[in-house]
Order: sequence, then C-alpha cells, then structure tokens
Amino acid sequence: MSNDSSDRILAELRTWIRDAPTGAQLPSSRALVREHAASPVTVQKALRRLVAEGLVESRPGVGSFVRAVRPSRGADFGWQTAALRTPRARLTALAGPLREAPAGAIALHAGYPGPDLLPERLVRTALVRAARSAAATGRAPAAGLPELRAWFATELADATPSHLAAVTAADVVVAPGSQSALSSIFRALVAPGRPLLVESPTYWGAIQAAQQAGVEVVPVPAGPDGPDPDDLDRAFRETGARAFYAQPSFANPTGVQWSTARAEEVLAVVRHHGAFLVDDDWAHDFGIDSDPRPVAALDDAGHVVYLRTLTKSVSPAVRVAAVIARGPARERILGDRAAESMYVSGLLQQAALEVVSDPGWRSHLRRLRVQLRERRALLLDAVRSVPGVSVDVVPPGGLHLWARLPDGTDVDRLARDCAARGVWVSGGDEWFPAEPSGAFLRLTFTGPEPAGYPEAARVIGDALAADPGSART
Amino acid sequence: MSNDSSDRILAELRTWIRDAPTGAQLPSSRALVREHAASPVTVQKALRRLVAEGLVESRPGVGSFVRAVRPSRGADFGWQTAALRTPRARLTALAGPLREAPAGAIALHAGYPGPDLLPERLVRTALVRAARSAAATGRAPAAGLPELRAWFATELADATPSHLAAVTAADVVVAPGSQSALSSIFRALVAPGRPLLVESPTYWGAIQAAQQAGVEVVPVPAGPDGPDPDDLDRAFRETGARAFYAQPSFANPTGVQWSTARAEEVLAVVRHHGAFLVDDDWAHDFGIDSDPRPVAALDDAGHVVYLRTLTKSVSPAVRVAAVIARGPARERILGDRAAESMYVSGLLQQAALEVVSDPGWRSHLRRLRVQLRERRALLLDAVRSVPGVSVDVVPPGGLHLWARLPDGTDVDRLARDCAARGVWVSGGDEWFPAEPSGAFLRLTFTGPEPAGYPEAARVIGDALAADPGSART
Repeated sequence: MSNDSSDRILAELRTWIRDAPTGAQLPSSRALVREHAASPVTVQKALRRLVAEGLVESRPGVGSFVRAVRPSRGADFGWQTAALRTPRARLTALAGPLREAPAGAIALHAGYPGPDLLPERLVRTALVRAARSAAATGRAPAAGLPELRAWFATELADATPSHLAAVTAADVVVAPGSQSALSSIFRALVAPGRPLLVESPTYWGAIQAAQQAGVEVVPVPAGPDGPDPDDLDRAFRETGARAFYAQPSFANPTGVQWSTARAEEVLAVVRHHGAFLVDDDWAHDFGIDSDPRPVAALDDAGHVVYLRTLTKSVSPAVRVAAVIARGPARERILGDRAAESMYVSGLLQQAALEVVSDPGWRSHLRRLRVQLRERRALLLDAVRSVPGVSVDVVPPGGLHLWARLPDGTDVDRLARDCAARGVWVSGGDEWFPAEPSGAFLRLTFTGPEPAGYPEAARVIGDALAADPGSART
Repeated sequence: MSNDSSDRILAELRTWIRDAPTGAQLPSSRALVREHAASPVTVQKALRRLVAEGLVESRPGVGSFVRAVRPSRGADFGWQTAALRTPRARLTALAGPLREAPAGAIALHAGYPGPDLLPERLVRTALVRAARSAAATGRAPAAGLPELRAWFATELADATPSHLAAVTAADVVVAPGSQSALSSIFRALVAPGRPLLVESPTYWGAIQAAQQAGVEVVPVPAGPDGPDPDDLDRAFRETGARAFYAQPSFANPTGVQWSTARAEEVLAVVRHHGAFLVDDDWAHDFGIDSDPRPVAALDDAGHVVYLRTLTKSVSPAVRVAAVIARGPARERILGDRAAESMYVSGLLQQAALEVVSDPGWRSHLRRLRVQLRERRALLLDAVRSVPGVSVDVVPPGGLHLWARLPDGTDVDRLARDCAARGVWVSGGDEWFPAEPSGAFLRLTFTGPEPAGYPEAARVIGDALAADPGSART
C-alpha cells in the first residue's frame, strides 16, 4: 500500500469536496482506482480518512457522499467572560516565532533549525526501533527513563571539575520539552506574586512561562558580557527575589556567552542571596566558536537548576528535555511535573536515548558546527550590508543574530511589511519583559533558505527606508 | 544488528560492573563477541550505551574500564527550604496508582489497561509509519494537527442531536495527555484561590491538577446516579463557583454513569449559575454494558468543556488527548497550553490519527468490550466472595471496581499488607478531596493477570480479617 498515492488521492478529493454541494456523491471506488491507477486498498484508505474527519459519509452498498456542514449559529458566548474574569496574564498561542510562514517565504523568524540541520536518518531509525520496542506500549516513570536520566547526568558530570560532587541520574527529571520544564521550574521555585529575576532581553517563552506561573518578572539588563553582578545584587536586594533565570551559554536572543569568571561572579551573588540560578542551556548542541559552559558544573550546593533540551537538536517531534536539580528543589519540580503531566512518553524518551548514544550523533554535531558557522557568516554579511542595521555581538553559538535597528523604528510594522514581501522576521519586542530598550530584529540563520539571505536583506532595507519613525540619518 | 542480543549483553555487563571495583578493565570486545556469539557491531552498541550512561570509560586502543563513582558529599540543602517556602499544595510524584509493582505481583492498583488489551499491532504500525513521515522531524501547530482535531470533533458531533450546533475542528485543542489537559482547564477556567466543584469521590489526578492550579476544591457527593442536582445547586450558591468537574460516563472510581435525564438536570443547574461543566470522558472507549454519553453533546452554548483521551485506549506511550470547548474559554485554554508546552509532538498526533482511522480500531474496540465484560465478571466474583467486602455499583464501563470495606478499616495499612503478600491494590482515600466518607479499595480489572483474581481475593480477605480497626461483625 503506497502512502504517497493515498495522500495524493486524499488531497484531490478534499479539493473536490470543497467545491461540491452537500449530499453530492463522490466518484465510486472503482472510478477512483482507475483514475489514479491506485490499488483499491489505497483508495479505501483515503475514503476512510475523509469519513474520520467528518467530510464524507459512507452508505454501505450505495456510495460515499459529501456530508452536510451544519450552519454555525453565530453564537454569543458573552456569559463566559463573567465566569472567566480577567486573566492574570494574557497568554497567546500565536507568538511571532511560532507562526507558520507560507510556502516560498524566506523564513528568518523561527526558533528551530530547519530539517536539513537535523540528524534526520538517526531520528527516523531511532523512532522505528522504539516503535518496535516495549516502549511503544508501556508507561514511563514520573522522573523519566533511568538510562536517559543517566545520560543527561553524565553529560553535565563530564563538565564538572573533580573537586565538586557531580550530579547523578537521581538528580534528573525528564520533561516533554523545555517549555514544560520552565513552567514547572518557575511554579516550583517561585510562589505566585513573588519576584523572579530574568535577563533583559531574554527568551520570550520563559517570559510566557513566568506569566503563566503568576510570578512577578523583574528584568536585569543583559550586557554584552552577561548581566552585571552589581546590577544583579541590587535587584536581589530590592525585590527579595530568590531566583534568577538566565541563558549563560549563547543567550537567546543576543547570543552572548558568559565567561567562566563572569559565571563565578554571578554565582557568588546568587549564593549570597540564598537563591537559585536557573541555567537554561537551550543551545548546548549549537556551539560555533565556543563550547557551551554550563554554570551548573560550577556548583554542587544546589544553587543551580539546570535545563537542557533535545527538542531543537534532535527533532521538534522528539519533545524531550531534562531538569537537573538537587535537594528539595528537585523534589518540588518533580511533584509539579507529575501533577502537570504524570510522565513523558517512553517512546520519545527511548528514541532520544537511541539518537544521542549512537556514534553518528557526535559526527552529526561536528558537521552541524561547520554548517552553523557558514550560515551565520552568510546572514551576517547580508544583514550588515543594510544601512542602519548593526549586529553588536557575533554570537559564538546558537541560531540567531540580534540586529539593532535605528532608534524609533516601528519593529512590528517593519516585520509586517517584510512578511508582505515574503521575508519573515521576528520583531525584537517579544524578548523584553518590559518596554524594549531599543529597536531590534531577531534573525535566525538556520531556516531553510540561506540562498535567500541577500534578498531578505534587500527587503529589510527597503522596509526600513520606508519607515517614517526611524531616526536613521 | 540484533537488538535483543545487544540488550542481553548490556544486562550482563551491568551486573558485572556492579560487582567490579572502580578502574577494573572490562572483557575485551573480542572476548565478548566470542562469549555471546554476537557480532562486533552488537557488542560495540552495548559498550557505547554503558559509556553514554557514565558507567564505563573507553580508552581508545586500550580497552573499557569501570568508571569511578564520585562519593556523594551527604550535602545539606537546608538553605533551599527558606528560599522555597511552604508550598501551596504538597504534590506527590508517587501517587499510589502510578507505583510500579514488582514482577510476579498481582497488580489491581493501576489505572491503565494491560498491554494485552491495547491495539498493539495497530500502534506499532502507526508509529513506524509516522516515523517515516514528515511528522518525525516537523513542528506541530499549537492547537494540534488539523486532521486529528477534525477527528475528535467528528466523534462528538456524531453524538450531538441535530437541533444543536455541533462542534468543529476549530473548537478542539490537542494536549499531551488528559492530565495536562486538566491542568490547563483548571488554570484557565478558575483563578487561584477561587472554588472548583468536584464530585466526591473523584479521580485523584484531577484533585492533584486542581491543587497545582491553586484553586479551592469543593466536594459535591457523587451518588449512585451521579450528583444530586439540589446538592450541586447549593454548592454553587454557597461558594460562588463557576466550574464543576465530573466524569458523567463511567466515573473513576465508582463506575457510575449519569442517565440522560440526570445529565439534563445537572446541565440546567450549571447553566443557571452561568458556569462550566468539565466533562471528563476518560473512559469513552471502555463502555461495557452501555455506550458513553458525553454531556457535551447536549450543550451548544459553551457551558460544557469536554475532555477525551487516547492515552489509555491507544497506548500509554501515545500521549494524546483533546479538549473541546467554545468561545473565550477555548481561547484561554489554548493560551495556557501554548505557555505550558507550545505544542504536542506531531509524531504522536500523527500516529494516534493513523490508529483511530484504521478499520482495525473499530474491531479492536468491539473485542475489547467483550474482554472487559469477562474480566469485570471474574473480578466481581472474586471480590464478592470476600466476607465484608461489597461492590454497590456494577460499573457499566471503565476499568475499575469500587469496593466498600467495613467501616473503620485502615485502608492504607490494608494496601501495604496486601502488597507484602504480592497483591497490589489502591486504597480509596486518594479519590477523596477531603476526609473519605468510608473505607474503599479501587480494584482494576484490566491488569495483566486475571488468573490471579481468586488469589487476590484470598489475600485481601486475610488482610481484612487481620485488621484490628475494622468493624466487621
């Protein structure tokens, strides 16, 4: 049975149905078999799918018919707004970086590597093996598969100097992606209404997770070398915060990496205030000029809660991340994860473990580093050719450039204008927990179309030239 | 490359390593190949896994060695308790029904069907197909795959009388399992500190999710025909609640199913109070004497938020559920899901869709009904033979019996005593949001060992006879 031809028949029938009146009879199975030179099984498969989706109804012995779409009432659900009240925070399901660009667009807005940068063969092989293993029909422990937890622990332990106690599998909690992990970390470490310090700008998903947890987000400026320890100390003192969220290796969006000296200084401030540092090592597998430097490797007193994800580097479909924490903090995070989702699909965990323990994984990461370096250079050249646009930090790792625009540029309008001309960019405002400190674009160099970078730069330049508010001279 | 023999070598080496001193050299690859009559590739695979888990270090050209386990410090993380403060609710990662029974035990405690009651062949085929499709390396939309949403909507629309507007794919939000869906529903519909009415007893996972959301859980007695509408009306009036969580088709743990008349009465009360009914149709695929009756099919004014899961009936590894809601409530739930986990693995969604749109799915469900009926009868016979134990409701669907014990029985002690004798049961207390109204066991008739039911009954009877507190005459 050919999957492709079934999909093709399905697509054609969907179009046919869209233009047909309710009750119209579909071509007979025999006619479809003839028309598409397909097997009866393939045709049946397509028809069954249409029935399952409610587009067609099948009358045995008679045929298949276009199903009536019941008219919508135009109902008013106004009563709900009284029951729901005003939300603590407006959470959006349509954050800019998650929007789906139309086919043919040059997409620089998303936060994921394109399919050509994924270890696709390894992923498919691992998923097929997992599908045939006991993991396909079993339940997984709340904290995750022991072998996968051991792998995550070993990765961090290998970076830990020998005078410190290294983490073990018992310190690891597996989560279905880093967004879920962040949500649990913030809920577990910070009570609603209490302050959470974050770098500014910082990852928009972390800002969303913090808002969902109902905590008060307090920005600390993220300088070109990481947060200033004095700024951080002041913020802890002023707010009484007990937690600071940061991305020390390759921050999103700025690409900044903390030096080891800076990490030690920040850690000293965190310790002094009896606080937690949430070390979000999201780009661990995306080092370019530099290797990741987990701050968690410098601490064995339970001050650093470490987060690592495989979703971006293995596959967006393999939603697997790990939180590594010690002491009561780890127990509270695990309790929250269990209440939130009980456990993570053992199939995805098994597949992730297969991928990262395959020797092909290391060679994939080596190749990836070369590809990231090339693409970063191409996008950097293109963007720096645009008058008025500057990139202050050449990111030593990660997936993005953080491009500064002339003061006063309306970045939302600019992003819309570019999208209208087929170039998708992310306006920088979503990365600021409060008012943005300037006008920025976040530009991803791992989208599918490096050949389109010069065209993208031209479109951005044109849109910028047309911006009435930009103070460019 | 044989997966099985690699796993066997792995298991033997793990045992060897456990008993070996740090630094001991493992047998050479050549020796392992000879000893296990395995290929070099298979042996290498096992060794690589041990390296990945941090148990072994490999020195190229020399051999593999047992890695030093760094001594734990016995660290005191007491400082954390000041930073963490007292939690709003104590969430546990080790709820009774999730505990893993040892091999050989008769397991009546879990909430899942055993592997022999799952559509195993369909699941594996669907997962393999999905692993080879674009879903294996792609990102999915925040609300879920459009085709899967259409399937969930059609299932509910087919149960909706024609004078009501049926739901569509646009009303559906896919979640990674029903626990995640419940967490989002409670966070979205009920502000922290505000009341949420629930049946009592009710599903322990819902109680956990409500506690995590920080809402005040208010119990409403769940009678033998469902909640009494007058009780419910009184609870709404007294508390000002705007939401009621229930399981109208086959409640967990009691097995009670509401009649359509009762559903209409409850819905009238809910409407009168401008409130939501959360209709958790968890056992939709587990009807025995009766078909499920979604209350959501009786409402088109947005009062019912409907929840359906495929995790229990397709596979515990395919964590896919759907929330169906209309109006602002749906938007708020979607916003919470996006902030919590962005999207659900497209691979699992694609596989779930393949399973439920296969013609084998319907025949599996028909066979399953027969199997559930047989097992229910076997466990019922066994349990009713125990003096002092009664089952008030023969559940018309679901996976469990709710067995009443003599007043005063210490159910936690009883469960521990039974476990010590190889029979795992769930004490009923976890299903009560407040003090339990009596002594109960929840006994699952879908565990792996129906042949063990008479033995289980004997053990329960012995433990009960030894219970000092039971008021049995």
